[in-house]
Amino acid sequence: MRFHAVSDKPRHFNHFYPAVPAVIGVEAGGRVNFMPAVWNVGLSFDPPLFGVGVSPKRFTHGLLAAASAFGVSFHPYGQAELVQRLGSASGREVDKVAAFGLEVVRGRALDVPLLGGFYAAYELEKTAALRTGDHTLFVGRLRGVWEDPEAFSGEVLDPVRVRALLYYGRYRYGHPAPVLETLEEA
Amino acid sequence: MRFHAVSDKPRHFNHFYPAVPAVIGVEAGGRVNFMPAVWNVGLSFDPPLFGVGVSPKRFTHGLLAAASAFGVSFHPYGQAELVQRLGSASGREVDKVAAFGLEVVRGRALDVPLLGGFYAAYELEKTAALRTGDHTLFVGRLRGVWEDPEAFSGEVLDPVRVRALLYYGRYRYGHPAPVLETLEEA
Repeated sequence: MRFHAVSDKPRHFNHFYPAVPAVIGVEAGGRVNFMPAVWNVGLSFDPPLFGVGVSPKRFTHGLLAAASAFGVSFHPYGQAELVQRLGSASGREVDKVAAFGLEVVRGRALDVPLLGGFYAAYELEKTAALRTGDHTLFVGRLRGVWEDPEAFSGEVLDPVRVRALLYYGRYRYGHPAPVLETLEEA
Repeated sequence: MRFHAVSDKPRHFNHFYPAVPAVIGVEAGGRVNFMPAVWNVGLSFDPPLFGVGVSPKRFTHGLLAAASAFGVSFHPYGQAELVQRLGSASGREVDKVAAFGLEVVRGRALDVPLLGGFYAAYELEKTAALRTGDHTLFVGRLRGVWEDPEAFSGEVLDPVRVRALLYYGRYRYGHPAPVLETLEEA
């Protein structure tokens, strides 16, 4: 086991990966944009709150700051290249929807864009924007849930039926093994 | 695709899983305790900040509120049962370290406990405690990194060499497939 003290920045900061990227969909000032955020997290059950961390350098940050709602969607491994493309191109330079021919699904509970092809998606009403170091954690209250009923069994994602996209850092992607073990409550 | 509006709580709130649990290690008032938090997230690169969401109902919450530092560690699938046990027992009723015969690794940068058996771990100096709905997001600044050099290749976790533990919700666990695809920057 190797240890190193961190005074400034670590050599890499992805030991907590793999993680499922949340593709943020947001619209403001007439622009729809999508960006994957691997820094996404549940924040509360009641009320149901979900957060995404976005750098102020990102074009999406300005849209999220201006919007009152946003969407997040979760995509299968088969869409890895699209997710990677959405993460490496900036909405500042390209209209991703037009340039990549994206399928845009409109929210039903809120007027938010969702990237087509997901197995699950949330419509979120923005409730807070917390500055955490060099990122902002945008917090949304869940107002609508989309789910592919084929992808879930017993109210959890079934890795036999769907290959969730996992991100490892440094443009590396994978997916879960088709294994699901139920452990007893102690 | 099924849609349902959410007014109060969703039927389940785990569409964004699977996720790697971070086992929180914390000591306060002479008590060492460990608890897995599947709500964990990177929050900033510079300074490097990492967050864990914990309910105020949890015994660990009191320790985190009292402590100035805490550890998080990431464990292989082979430790799934231990992680599950740590999540379903409360430090209020049992001294998990004694009762489960836990191996405690002491931090080197900070005086924090880490659960033995990890492939990576962080030592974190507590910098904030943000209330988000019914949870608190404890934010820590990275002061030390532990990593098993065998588990990482090219500065990312190598799923061929280590089976990271993935949590799906409802006491269900799995692990990634031994697949790692590098995609080009667009």
